[in-house]
Amino acid sequence: MTTLTLYYAPGTCAQAVRIALEEAQAPYTPVRMDFASQQQRSPEYLAINPKGRVPALVTEHGVLTETPALLAYVAQRFVQAGLAPADAFGFARMQEFNSYLASTVHVAHAHRPRASRWADEPEAQAAMQRKVPANMTECFDVIERHYLGDGPWMLGEQYTVADGYLFTVAGWLKSDGVDIARFPKVHAHSQRMAARPAVQRALG
Amino acid sequence: MTTLTLYYAPGTCAQAVRIALEEAQAPYTPVRMDFASQQQRSPEYLAINPKGRVPALVTEHGVLTETPALLAYVAQRFVQAGLAPADAFGFARMQEFNSYLASTVHVAHAHRPRASRWADEPEAQAAMQRKVPANMTECFDVIERHYLGDGPWMLGEQYTVADGYLFTVAGWLKSDGVDIARFPKVHAHSQRMAARPAVQRALG
Repeated sequence: MTTLTLYYAPGTCAQAVRIALEEAQAPYTPVRMDFASQQQRSPEYLAINPKGRVPALVTEHGVLTETPALLAYVAQRFVQAGLAPADAFGFARMQEFNSYLASTVHVAHAHRPRASRWADEPEAQAAMQRKVPANMTECFDVIERHYLGDGPWMLGEQYTVADGYLFTVAGWLKSDGVDIARFPKVHAHSQRMAARPAVQRALG
Repeated sequence: MTTLTLYYAPGTCAQAVRIALEEAQAPYTPVRMDFASQQQRSPEYLAINPKGRVPALVTEHGVLTETPALLAYVAQRFVQAGLAPADAFGFARMQEFNSYLASTVHVAHAHRPRASRWADEPEAQAAMQRKVPANMTECFDVIERHYLGDGPWMLGEQYTVADGYLFTVAGWLKSDGVDIARFPKVHAHSQRMAARPAVQRALG
Protein backbone atom coordinates (compact mmCIF):
# COMPACT_ATOMS: atom_id res chain seq x y z
CA MET A 1 0.00 0.00 0.00
CA THR A 2 1.27 3.45 -0.91
CA THR A 3 2.51 5.71 1.85
CA LEU A 4 0.19 8.66 2.39
CA THR A 5 1.49 12.20 2.90
CA LEU A 6 -0.26 14.49 5.38
CA TYR A 7 0.35 18.22 5.24
CA TYR A 8 -0.41 19.68 8.67
CA ALA A 9 0.43 22.45 11.12
CA PRO A 10 0.59 22.02 14.88
CA GLY A 11 -2.48 23.21 16.75
CA THR A 12 -4.74 23.17 13.70
CA CYS A 13 -7.61 20.79 12.96
CA ALA A 14 -5.12 18.74 10.92
CA GLN A 15 -4.06 17.29 14.27
CA ALA A 16 -7.32 15.27 14.27
CA VAL A 17 -6.30 13.59 11.01
CA ARG A 18 -2.83 12.87 12.36
CA ILE A 19 -4.36 11.23 15.43
CA ALA A 20 -6.60 9.10 13.18
CA LEU A 21 -3.60 7.99 11.07
CA GLU A 22 -1.62 7.12 14.20
CA GLU A 23 -4.56 5.18 15.68
CA ALA A 24 -4.86 3.26 12.41
CA GLN A 25 -1.09 2.57 12.40
CA ALA A 26 -1.20 3.83 8.84
CA PRO A 27 1.95 4.22 6.74
CA TYR A 28 2.16 8.01 6.29
CA THR A 29 4.64 10.86 6.10
CA PRO A 30 3.73 13.99 8.06
CA VAL A 31 4.88 17.24 6.46
CA ARG A 32 4.82 20.20 8.82
CA MET A 33 3.83 23.51 7.27
CA ASP A 34 5.27 26.73 8.68
CA PHE A 35 2.30 29.09 9.11
CA ALA A 36 4.56 31.83 10.52
CA SER A 37 6.19 32.20 7.09
CA GLN A 38 2.83 31.68 5.32
CA GLN A 39 4.11 28.48 3.75
CA GLN A 40 0.50 27.40 3.20
CA ARG A 41 0.23 30.26 0.66
CA SER A 42 3.39 29.32 -1.25
CA PRO A 43 3.03 28.36 -4.94
CA GLU A 44 4.37 24.88 -4.12
CA TYR A 45 1.65 24.24 -1.56
CA LEU A 46 -1.14 25.90 -3.57
CA ALA A 47 -0.34 23.38 -6.31
CA ILE A 48 -1.24 20.67 -3.79
CA ASN A 49 -4.18 22.45 -2.14
CA PRO A 50 -5.44 25.54 -3.98
CA LYS A 51 -7.41 26.53 -0.87
CA GLY A 52 -4.16 27.22 1.00
CA ARG A 53 -5.24 25.45 4.17
CA VAL A 54 -4.35 22.32 6.08
CA PRO A 55 -4.95 19.42 6.29
CA ALA A 56 -4.24 17.97 2.85
CA LEU A 57 -3.70 14.25 2.33
CA VAL A 58 -1.87 13.04 -0.77
CA THR A 59 -3.03 9.58 -1.87
CA GLU A 60 -2.22 7.45 -4.90
CA HIS A 61 -5.51 8.64 -6.45
CA GLY A 62 -5.08 12.36 -5.76
CA VAL A 63 -5.23 14.95 -2.99
CA LEU A 64 -8.03 15.07 -0.41
CA THR A 65 -8.85 17.98 1.91
CA GLU A 66 -11.43 18.97 4.58
CA THR A 67 -11.10 17.34 8.00
CA PRO A 68 -14.44 15.47 8.20
CA ALA A 69 -13.84 13.94 4.76
CA LEU A 70 -10.30 12.90 5.70
CA LEU A 71 -11.40 11.37 9.00
CA ALA A 72 -14.03 9.19 7.32
CA TYR A 73 -11.53 8.28 4.60
CA VAL A 74 -8.90 7.11 7.10
CA ALA A 75 -11.53 5.05 8.94
CA GLN A 76 -12.72 3.45 5.68
CA ARG A 77 -9.26 2.86 4.22
CA PHE A 78 -7.94 1.24 7.40
CA VAL A 79 -11.18 -0.49 8.25
CA GLN A 80 -9.44 -3.16 10.35
CA ALA A 81 -8.62 -0.46 12.93
CA GLY A 82 -12.35 -0.10 13.70
CA LEU A 83 -12.27 3.71 13.83
CA ALA A 84 -15.87 4.21 12.62
CA PRO A 85 -19.16 2.40 13.27
CA ALA A 86 -19.90 -0.27 10.68
CA ASP A 87 -23.67 0.42 10.58
CA ALA A 88 -25.12 3.26 8.49
CA PHE A 89 -26.82 5.05 11.38
CA GLY A 90 -23.74 4.92 13.62
CA PHE A 91 -21.54 6.15 10.78
CA ALA A 92 -24.00 8.99 10.12
CA ARG A 93 -24.04 9.92 13.80
CA MET A 94 -20.23 10.14 13.76
CA GLN A 95 -20.36 12.21 10.60
CA GLU A 96 -22.99 14.51 12.16
CA PHE A 97 -20.68 15.23 15.07
CA ASN A 98 -17.64 15.79 12.82
CA SER A 99 -19.70 18.11 10.64
CA TYR A 100 -20.90 20.08 13.68
CA LEU A 101 -17.29 20.49 14.83
CA ALA A 102 -16.22 21.66 11.36
CA SER A 103 -19.02 24.01 10.40
CA THR A 104 -20.15 25.40 13.76
CA VAL A 105 -17.51 24.91 16.49
CA HIS A 106 -14.37 25.46 14.38
CA VAL A 107 -16.09 28.48 12.82
CA ALA A 108 -16.99 29.90 16.25
CA HIS A 109 -13.34 29.58 17.28
CA ALA A 110 -11.95 30.97 14.01
CA HIS A 111 -13.56 34.35 14.64
CA ARG A 112 -10.77 35.04 17.14
CA PRO A 113 -7.58 34.22 15.16
CA ARG A 114 -9.13 34.62 11.70
CA ALA A 115 -11.65 37.46 12.16
CA SER A 116 -10.17 39.22 9.12
CA ARG A 117 -11.80 36.60 6.91
CA TRP A 118 -15.23 38.06 7.58
CA ALA A 119 -14.70 41.83 8.00
CA ASP A 120 -12.02 44.33 7.03
CA GLU A 121 -12.51 46.93 9.78
CA PRO A 122 -10.43 46.43 12.96
CA GLU A 123 -13.39 47.45 15.16
CA ALA A 124 -15.58 44.78 13.58
CA GLN A 125 -12.86 42.18 14.02
CA ALA A 126 -12.57 43.14 17.69
CA ALA A 127 -16.35 42.83 18.08
CA MET A 128 -16.23 39.29 16.66
CA GLN A 129 -13.35 38.38 18.94
CA ARG A 130 -15.27 39.59 22.00
CA LYS A 131 -18.10 37.19 21.20
CA VAL A 132 -15.89 34.09 20.79
CA PRO A 133 -15.92 32.97 24.45
CA ALA A 134 -19.75 33.07 24.57
CA ASN A 135 -20.09 31.21 21.27
CA MET A 136 -17.56 28.54 22.21
CA THR A 137 -19.33 28.09 25.55
CA GLU A 138 -22.65 27.63 23.75
CA CYS A 139 -21.12 25.05 21.40
CA PHE A 140 -19.53 23.06 24.21
CA ASP A 141 -22.78 23.17 26.18
CA VAL A 142 -24.37 21.38 23.21
CA ILE A 143 -21.51 18.85 23.12
CA GLU A 144 -21.62 18.28 26.88
CA ARG A 145 -25.40 17.91 27.08
CA HIS A 146 -26.42 16.37 23.79
CA TYR A 147 -23.45 14.56 22.29
CA LEU A 148 -21.39 13.11 25.13
CA GLY A 149 -23.14 10.33 27.01
CA ASP A 150 -21.70 8.07 29.66
CA GLY A 151 -18.61 7.53 27.53
CA PRO A 152 -15.88 6.71 27.54
CA TRP A 153 -15.96 7.93 23.92
CA MET A 154 -18.18 10.24 21.90
CA LEU A 155 -20.19 7.35 20.49
CA GLY A 156 -20.10 5.33 23.71
CA GLU A 157 -18.01 2.18 23.89
CA GLN A 158 -16.42 2.48 20.45
CA TYR A 159 -13.44 4.80 20.01
CA THR A 160 -13.73 6.57 16.62
CA VAL A 161 -12.04 9.28 14.56
CA ALA A 162 -14.55 11.74 16.08
CA ASP A 163 -12.75 11.47 19.42
CA GLY A 164 -9.48 12.84 18.05
CA TYR A 165 -11.40 15.68 16.43
CA LEU A 166 -13.21 16.60 19.66
CA PHE A 167 -9.91 16.47 21.55
CA THR A 168 -8.32 18.80 18.98
CA VAL A 169 -11.12 21.38 19.03
CA ALA A 170 -11.44 21.22 22.84
CA GLY A 171 -7.74 22.09 22.92
CA TRP A 172 -8.65 25.54 21.58
CA LEU A 173 -10.89 26.45 24.53
CA LYS A 174 -8.08 27.79 26.71
CA SER A 175 -6.83 30.25 24.10
CA ASP A 176 -10.44 31.28 23.52
CA GLY A 177 -10.77 32.21 27.18
CA VAL A 178 -13.04 29.34 28.19
CA ASP A 179 -12.25 26.98 31.07
CA ILE A 180 -12.67 23.37 29.92
CA ALA A 181 -13.52 22.40 33.52
CA ARG A 182 -16.96 23.98 32.92
CA PHE A 183 -17.71 20.88 30.84
CA PRO A 184 -16.94 17.85 33.02
CA LYS A 185 -17.58 15.23 30.33
CA VAL A 186 -15.49 17.08 27.74
CA HIS A 187 -12.74 17.57 30.32
CA ALA A 188 -12.65 13.89 31.26
CA HIS A 189 -12.70 12.95 27.57
CA SER A 190 -9.66 15.16 26.87
CA GLN A 191 -7.78 13.58 29.75
CA ARG A 192 -8.55 10.08 28.45
CA MET A 193 -7.40 11.14 25.00
CA ALA A 194 -4.11 12.62 26.23
CA ALA A 195 -3.25 9.25 27.79
CA ARG A 196 -3.51 7.33 24.49
CA PRO A 197 -0.14 6.39 22.92
CA ALA A 198 -1.36 7.25 19.41
CA VAL A 199 -2.33 10.74 20.55
CA GLN A 200 1.05 11.24 22.16
CA ARG A 201 2.75 10.16 18.93
CA ALA A 202 0.56 12.56 16.93
CA LEU A 203 1.44 15.47 19.19
CA GLY A 204 5.14 14.58 19.35
CA MET B 1 -38.91 0.19 5.54
CA THR B 2 -39.88 2.96 7.94
CA THR B 3 -40.89 6.29 6.49
CA LEU B 4 -38.36 9.00 7.26
CA THR B 5 -39.40 12.47 8.42
CA LEU B 6 -37.45 15.50 7.18
CA TYR B 7 -37.80 18.82 8.99
CA TYR B 8 -36.87 21.58 6.56
CA ALA B 9 -37.45 25.20 5.64
CA PRO B 10 -37.57 26.52 2.07
CA GLY B 11 -34.39 28.19 0.87
CA THR B 12 -32.19 26.62 3.56
CA CYS B 13 -29.53 23.96 3.11
CA ALA B 14 -32.19 21.40 4.06
CA GLN B 15 -33.28 21.69 0.43
CA ALA B 16 -30.19 19.65 -0.52
CA VAL B 17 -31.39 16.77 1.65
CA ARG B 18 -34.87 16.98 0.18
CA ILE B 19 -33.41 16.78 -3.32
CA ALA B 20 -31.38 13.70 -2.29
CA LEU B 21 -34.49 12.00 -0.85
CA GLU B 22 -36.46 12.77 -4.02
CA GLU B 23 -33.66 11.50 -6.25
CA ALA B 24 -33.56 8.28 -4.18
CA GLN B 25 -37.34 7.94 -4.43
CA ALA B 26 -37.22 7.46 -0.67
CA PRO B 27 -40.38 7.11 1.43
CA TYR B 28 -40.32 10.31 3.52
CA THR B 29 -42.57 12.94 5.00
CA PRO B 30 -41.40 16.55 4.63
CA VAL B 31 -42.35 18.81 7.55
CA ARG B 32 -42.03 22.49 6.75
CA MET B 33 -40.83 24.69 9.62
CA ASP B 34 -42.01 28.30 9.82
CA PHE B 35 -38.87 30.35 10.43
CA ALA B 36 -40.91 33.60 10.44
CA SER B 37 -42.56 32.53 13.70
CA GLN B 38 -39.28 31.04 14.98
CA GLN B 39 -40.81 27.56 14.98
CA GLN B 40 -37.30 26.08 14.93
CA ARG B 41 -36.87 27.49 18.46
CA SER B 42 -40.13 26.02 19.81
CA PRO B 43 -39.89 23.49 22.68
CA GLU B 44 -41.46 20.86 20.41
CA TYR B 45 -38.76 21.23 17.78
CA LEU B 46 -35.90 21.61 20.27
CA ALA B 47 -36.93 18.20 21.62
CA ILE B 48 -36.18 16.84 18.13
CA ASN B 49 -33.09 18.95 17.40
CA PRO B 50 -31.64 20.79 20.42
CA LYS B 51 -29.53 22.91 18.05
CA GLY B 52 -32.69 24.61 16.74
CA ARG B 53 -31.69 24.35 13.09
CA VAL B 54 -32.78 22.49 9.99
CA PRO B 55 -32.38 19.94 8.51
CA ALA B 56 -33.26 17.18 10.95
CA LEU B 57 -34.08 13.68 9.75
CA VAL B 58 -36.05 11.34 12.01
CA THR B 59 -35.17 7.68 11.43
CA GLU B 60 -36.18 4.49 13.21
CA HIS B 61 -32.84 4.61 15.08
CA GLY B 62 -32.98 8.27 16.12
CA VAL B 63 -32.59 11.81 14.80
CA LEU B 64 -29.76 12.86 12.50
CA THR B 65 -28.67 16.43 11.71
CA GLU B 66 -25.99 18.31 9.71
CA THR B 67 -26.38 18.42 5.95
CA PRO B 68 -23.17 16.60 4.87
CA ALA B 69 -23.95 13.73 7.27
CA LEU B 70 -27.53 13.48 6.02
CA LEU B 71 -26.49 13.53 2.38
CA ALA B 72 -24.06 10.63 2.86
CA TYR B 73 -26.68 8.79 4.93
CA VAL B 74 -29.33 9.06 2.22
CA ALA B 75 -26.82 7.85 -0.38
CA GLN B 76 -25.82 4.88 1.78
CA ARG B 77 -29.35 3.95 2.88
CA PHE B 78 -30.71 4.04 -0.66
CA VAL B 79 -27.59 2.63 -2.24
CA GLN B 80 -29.48 1.31 -5.26
CA ALA B 81 -30.05 4.92 -6.37
CA GLY B 82 -26.31 5.32 -6.96
CA LEU B 83 -26.11 8.78 -5.38
CA ALA B 84 -22.51 8.43 -4.15
CA PRO B 85 -19.35 6.86 -5.59
CA ALA B 86 -18.85 3.27 -4.47
CA ASP B 87 -15.05 3.56 -4.14
CA ALA B 88 -13.43 5.04 -1.02
CA PHE B 89 -11.55 7.81 -2.85
CA GLY B 90 -14.59 8.93 -4.84
CA PHE B 91 -16.74 8.92 -1.72
CA ALA B 92 -14.09 10.98 0.10
CA ARG B 93 -13.92 13.44 -2.78
CA MET B 94 -17.71 13.90 -2.59
CA GLN B 95 -17.47 14.33 1.16
CA GLU B 96 -14.66 16.88 0.74
CA PHE B 97 -16.86 18.99 -1.50
CA ASN B 98 -19.88 18.71 0.81
CA SER B 99 -17.70 19.67 3.77
CA TYR B 100 -16.31 22.67 1.91
CA LEU B 101 -19.86 23.81 1.12
CA ALA B 102 -20.91 23.39 4.78
CA SER B 103 -17.96 24.86 6.64
CA THR B 104 -16.68 27.52 4.22
CA VAL B 105 -19.29 28.49 1.61
CA HIS B 106 -22.42 28.27 3.79
CA VAL B 107 -20.52 30.14 6.52
CA ALA B 108 -19.45 32.87 4.06
CA HIS B 109 -23.09 33.30 3.07
CA ALA B 110 -24.43 33.20 6.64
CA HIS B 111 -22.56 36.38 7.55
CA ARG B 112 -25.24 38.30 5.68
CA PRO B 113 -28.52 36.93 7.14
CA ARG B 114 -27.01 35.62 10.39
CA ALA B 115 -24.29 38.17 11.20
CA SER B 116 -25.68 38.50 14.73
CA ARG B 117 -24.29 35.06 15.52
CA TRP B 118 -20.75 36.41 15.51
CA ALA B 119 -20.99 40.00 16.81
CA ASP B 120 -23.50 41.99 18.84
CA GLU B 121 -22.76 45.49 17.53
CA PRO B 122 -24.81 46.62 14.49
CA GLU B 123 -21.76 48.30 12.94
CA ALA B 124 -19.79 45.07 13.13
CA GLN B 125 -22.69 43.15 11.61
CA ALA B 126 -22.85 45.66 8.77
CA ALA B 127 -19.10 45.27 8.22
CA MET B 128 -19.52 41.50 7.91
CA GLN B 129 -22.41 41.91 5.51
CA ARG B 130 -20.35 44.21 3.27
CA LYS B 131 -17.72 41.49 2.87
CA VAL B 132 -20.16 38.71 1.89
CA PRO B 133 -20.15 39.34 -1.88
CA ALA B 134 -16.31 39.20 -2.01
CA ASN B 135 -16.17 36.05 0.12
CA MET B 136 -18.88 34.28 -1.87
CA THR B 137 -17.09 35.25 -5.10
CA GLU B 138 -13.85 33.79 -3.76
CA CYS B 139 -15.59 30.54 -2.78
CA PHE B 140 -17.29 30.14 -6.14
CA ASP B 141 -14.00 30.88 -7.92
CA VAL B 142 -12.59 27.85 -6.08
CA ILE B 143 -15.63 25.76 -7.08
CA GLU B 144 -15.50 26.92 -10.71
CA ARG B 145 -11.75 26.40 -11.12
CA HIS B 146 -10.90 23.48 -8.87
CA TYR B 147 -14.03 21.41 -8.30
CA LEU B 148 -16.14 21.54 -11.45
CA GLY B 149 -14.56 19.77 -14.39
CA ASP B 150 -16.11 19.03 -17.74
CA GLY B 151 -19.27 17.84 -16.06
CA PRO B 152 -22.05 17.32 -16.37
CA TRP B 153 -21.93 16.78 -12.57
CA MET B 154 -19.58 17.77 -9.78
CA LEU B 155 -17.83 14.41 -9.84
CA GLY B 156 -18.01 14.07 -13.61
CA GLU B 157 -20.31 11.48 -15.16
CA GLN B 158 -21.95 10.32 -11.93
CA TYR B 159 -24.75 12.44 -10.44
CA THR B 160 -24.38 12.47 -6.62
CA VAL B 161 -25.92 14.09 -3.55
CA ALA B 162 -23.21 16.77 -3.84
CA ASP B 163 -24.97 18.16 -6.92
CA GLY B 164 -28.15 19.02 -5.01
CA TYR B 165 -26.04 20.68 -2.34
CA LEU B 166 -24.12 22.81 -4.85
CA PHE B 167 -27.39 23.78 -6.55
CA THR B 168 -28.84 24.83 -3.18
CA VAL B 169 -25.87 26.95 -2.12
CA ALA B 170 -25.50 28.49 -5.60
CA GLY B 171 -29.12 29.57 -5.21
CA TRP B 172 -28.00 31.99 -2.49
CA LEU B 173 -25.63 33.94 -4.78
CA LYS B 174 -28.29 36.31 -6.07
CA SER B 175 -29.41 37.44 -2.61
CA ASP B 176 -25.74 37.82 -1.69
CA GLY B 177 -25.29 40.26 -4.56
CA VAL B 178 -23.21 37.98 -6.79
CA ASP B 179 -24.12 37.23 -10.42
CA ILE B 180 -23.99 33.47 -10.99
CA ALA B 181 -23.15 34.15 -14.65
CA ARG B 182 -19.63 35.05 -13.49
CA PHE B 183 -19.13 31.30 -13.02
CA PRO B 184 -20.08 29.63 -16.32
CA LYS B 185 -19.68 26.03 -15.08
CA VAL B 186 -21.67 26.68 -11.90
CA HIS B 187 -24.33 28.46 -13.95
CA ALA B 188 -24.68 25.61 -16.43
CA HIS B 189 -24.75 23.12 -13.55
CA SER B 190 -27.64 25.00 -11.90
CA GLN B 191 -29.58 25.01 -15.15
CA ARG B 192 -29.09 21.27 -15.56
CA MET B 193 -30.22 20.74 -11.97
CA ALA B 194 -33.36 22.85 -12.36
CA ALA B 195 -34.44 20.60 -15.23
CA ARG B 196 -34.39 17.41 -13.15
CA PRO B 197 -37.83 16.11 -12.13
CA ALA B 198 -36.63 15.22 -8.60
CA VAL B 199 -35.39 18.77 -8.09
CA GLN B 200 -38.70 20.18 -9.27
CA ARG B 201 -40.53 17.91 -6.80
CA ALA B 202 -38.20 18.99 -3.99
CA LEU B 203 -38.83 22.66 -4.69
CA GLY B 204 -42.56 22.22 -5.14
